[in-house]
Amino acid sequence: MKLDFSVAVHSLFYLEENSPRKIASRELAGCLDLNAVVIRNILSVLHKKGYIEGTVGKNGGYQLKRKLADINVGELYDVTIPPTISYARFITGKSEGIKKDDHISNNMSETLTDLFTLADDQYRAFYHRFTLADLKQDLYHHGYVKQLIKNNDK
Amino acid sequence: MKLDFSVAVHSLFYLEENSPRKIASRELAGCLDLNAVVIRNILSVLHKKGYIEGTVGKNGGYQLKRKLADINVGELYDVTIPPTISYARFITGKSEGIKKDDHISNNMSETLTDLFTLADDQYRAFYHRFTLADLKQDLYHHGYVKQLIKNNDK
Repeated sequence: MKLDFSVAVHSLFYLEENSPRKIASRELAGCLDLNAVVIRNILSVLHKKGYIEGTVGKNGGYQLKRKLADINVGELYDVTIPPTISYARFITGKSEGIKKDDHISNNMSETLTDLFTLADDQYRAFYHRFTLADLKQDLYHHGYVKQLIKNNDK
Repeated sequence: MKLDFSVAVHSLFYLEENSPRKIASRELAGCLDLNAVVIRNILSVLHKKGYIEGTVGKNGGYQLKRKLADINVGELYDVTIPPTISYARFITGKSEGIKKDDHISNNMSETLTDLFTLADDQYRAFYHRFTLADLKQDLYHHGYVKQLIKNNDK
């Protein structure tokens, strides 16, 4: 869910800001006002995907492994919020295995799944237009991201 | 939520298919495999927004008021799934009213809210590219919507 993405962004910023000091998940949890278990789960994903390096446990801690300018926001979004596998629970008129006698009900699932999937592709493509360095610019000069989109879409 | 949108689309298709017969919410509920209360809530929104006309109660029922080609899918999406008012619950590091001493935590909220809002705008803009007539084409010739996007994005 979206909070995981925010945690990932915030954590990576924090590691960069405090580089080269090793940051423990407990310290991040305090800073982000979240349970350390939540933080650890997300750090574990970031570690696996090569965003950060380090170890857990006593005297452990994490460091950023890549430059902010080399971290694509869309990739981070995809890693923390995997695409929906099935839209079945959002689609009407098709009970498991039961064919209705009307054409609409029988085909709503395929049509809406396509629609939702294409929309989600576009949504994710939006995030791919930025790097974490862009977002950091926005932290210091709020409005930067908005302006970036405005200029690009001209 | 997304199911409301699917219900709205399915209901409008059903009314069109059965036009000019008046359709009761109970009949729709049976067709869509959903509780009649869920259906009634959504029909009430569609009625208020001028998509359908009719009455509830005995001998009541609804009819489509507009042509499928005049119903924009994006508008229907906005009507059934209003935009998120606040992303606060998806944003880290800012407790109500408590200012932290670091710049990142203090500014994450504004930056991520902008990012999420811009992404959602683009997401919704995608749906605005279609009418219900386009979706109906896809029901009968699956792949139509996908092809439409492919051709438009060339």
